[in-house]
Amino acid sequence: MTEIPTLDPPRRVLMGPGPSGADPSVLAAMGLPILGHLDPEFMRIMDECQRMMRQIFRTGNEVTLATPGTGTSGMEAAVMNLLQPGDRAVIGICGYFGDRIAQMASRTGAEVAIVTAPWGSPIAPEDVERELRAAPTKLVAVVHAETSTGVRQPVEPISKLCKEHGALLLLDCVTSLGGVPVEIDAWGVDAAYSGTQKCLSAPPGASPVTLSPAAWSAVQAREAPSNSWYLDLNLLEAYWDSRRAYHHTSPISMTYALHRALALVLEEGLEARWERHERNGRALQAGLEAMGLVLHADAEHRLPVLTTVRIPEGVDDGAVRGALLQQSGIEVGGGIGDLRGRVWRVGLMGESSTPGNVLYFLTSLGRLLREQGVAADLGAALDVAATRLDA
Amino acid sequence: MTEIPTLDPPRRVLMGPGPSGADPSVLAAMGLPILGHLDPEFMRIMDECQRMMRQIFRTGNEVTLATPGTGTSGMEAAVMNLLQPGDRAVIGICGYFGDRIAQMASRTGAEVAIVTAPWGSPIAPEDVERELRAAPTKLVAVVHAETSTGVRQPVEPISKLCKEHGALLLLDCVTSLGGVPVEIDAWGVDAAYSGTQKCLSAPPGASPVTLSPAAWSAVQAREAPSNSWYLDLNLLEAYWDSRRAYHHTSPISMTYALHRALALVLEEGLEARWERHERNGRALQAGLEAMGLVLHADAEHRLPVLTTVRIPEGVDDGAVRGALLQQSGIEVGGGIGDLRGRVWRVGLMGESSTPGNVLYFLTSLGRLLREQGVAADLGAALDVAATRLDA
Repeated sequence: MTEIPTLDPPRRVLMGPGPSGADPSVLAAMGLPILGHLDPEFMRIMDECQRMMRQIFRTGNEVTLATPGTGTSGMEAAVMNLLQPGDRAVIGICGYFGDRIAQMASRTGAEVAIVTAPWGSPIAPEDVERELRAAPTKLVAVVHAETSTGVRQPVEPISKLCKEHGALLLLDCVTSLGGVPVEIDAWGVDAAYSGTQKCLSAPPGASPVTLSPAAWSAVQAREAPSNSWYLDLNLLEAYWDSRRAYHHTSPISMTYALHRALALVLEEGLEARWERHERNGRALQAGLEAMGLVLHADAEHRLPVLTTVRIPEGVDDGAVRGALLQQSGIEVGGGIGDLRGRVWRVGLMGESSTPGNVLYFLTSLGRLLREQGVAADLGAALDVAATRLDA
Repeated sequence: MTEIPTLDPPRRVLMGPGPSGADPSVLAAMGLPILGHLDPEFMRIMDECQRMMRQIFRTGNEVTLATPGTGTSGMEAAVMNLLQPGDRAVIGICGYFGDRIAQMASRTGAEVAIVTAPWGSPIAPEDVERELRAAPTKLVAVVHAETSTGVRQPVEPISKLCKEHGALLLLDCVTSLGGVPVEIDAWGVDAAYSGTQKCLSAPPGASPVTLSPAAWSAVQAREAPSNSWYLDLNLLEAYWDSRRAYHHTSPISMTYALHRALALVLEEGLEARWERHERNGRALQAGLEAMGLVLHADAEHRLPVLTTVRIPEGVDDGAVRGALLQQSGIEVGGGIGDLRGRVWRVGLMGESSTPGNVLYFLTSLGRLLREQGVAADLGAALDVAATRLDA
């Protein structure tokens, strides 16, 4: 390479499984002057982020911080710190991300018991209960909003079982936080993590994490340090709390983006934000069904923020997604894991959850499907969706 | 908290151990439209980053990528993937970051042999040799530029010993890359990592990592997966190479910043950039000595990019650093580890390495020291420094 490359990314309509679009003020925040990671002014910004994360997680948990990495770093921080050799964990797998938790858990040396459900349904509480009865269990982990299937996991029945059996509950909130109700304290969740690039609508690069006093005690009671040094919660907490002990150089600009994005969530109001995601998501889903397409996730557990729609027989998955991107600038996700090649994943998260995006996507998809020989009823789709959006 | 916080970080002159200042075009890059992490246009940006990282590391290593976290994530990726139970590692500790490598190494279950030197000197090759003779060793790790002491480690003598004894050499280049010569291939280094927020002058949040074919073979020959899933190099490489297998949602905006920062390094030219850091750093050091202060690091191993200067007897460390920050907006670092309370750490890295910063800092520090009763010869300091800057 002799030429030095320039940077000119095109503008996209981000309707995949994340990243979602970001508000211009979030992007602008990253251009603010860099502070040192131990500057008193930066400490103040961290404290404000912490307070806002608690509000959005609906928790009073003292231990609430953002790990210096993407959502998967939050997952790893939770799993690698809560589990150690000799522990038993029950992990619910009904999609790609439950499986990822199980992979991480198995690297801790803990005994991992798996509970499964079809990709498109949530984990059944009775299956968790059976495993909790089988042997003493330290941790149960489930995914609240499974980004691979578009399914919302009911949390309270599982939380109740955890309390009965003395197990901690870990909840993956990567795709739910800021988009659908998350009630860490009211539901009795002991540990949760999220990502910035979904319904919080900041760029990827930080992961809000919160631990209940019981979960924190479990971390502190470890006999050996966690597998990870970078994501050792004892070390991370010592930097986030009043000790301010140096551990890593905080991703300063990303923390600004997180701060601004959290503030935007609170400015909109959590309930209003959930309602917006609900309305736009249901309009999209009604439109897709009116077009003649089949939604994959169980109707009663369907998320509004991430919709899986089955690819009609004979339609070329890659050609449609490529054309959406190249002709309309719309990104949607392909299927992953068990659903590879079988569904498209359409996100309506954070800034990307707008009526305009719903109608633009339905129109673009409907026209492309017609080109592929599918009798897509575009008129009905737009009519139904618009009616829902007005409601 | 009822009020939603706003964000208004003050402008600082960043002359601590990092983060350094960033070029306005690097900050502006983070405001560019977000792309999906599997968008073909983003893949192109990743490929360009990879090629530029190879040029700056001076390597042809195929496996060259940026881990999704700060410099410590690169350290963890290298250590946790290269070591497993049953391996033996020889780690050089002559400062805080060598100690951190040893802490990580001990979490992998490997046998860790420590070689030390006083904080202010580099590791002696004969000490490494003694340990290499003691038992078969898989990995030797040393810190190229020890940010806690301001010492540069001579690499080639240690590399030669590693080759003789069949050990891999891991080099921490967090504070050296882009500021002082780093020659991964010419020196025979097998694995190296850096940070973005030092001499590359991007915000913290990504870590360039490169592995030689021999190091990569060692990673692939592991019997068990690495401790870390988030920083598993097999999974990271499968996303960075042509497989493009999803592993994490890349920190998109941070990758833009990295891209622009790497391009700036190449636009300036590596040799010219090294020369700039050398000239400004030596001017600062000559000025500090002319002022009557004592530099801590061995003269022959002193880095130009990070200077440790001893705090004169009777001077209040916190008061001086606080006044520098509050009155002049200058951030410098305090001592850490063995040097806590004994030195200041003054960085001149990347965009922060300017003649203006040298003179501004000398002036501000000299005046503050006089207020503290130290007979600082400010006139001599500025005269000597300015002469060096002109040279």
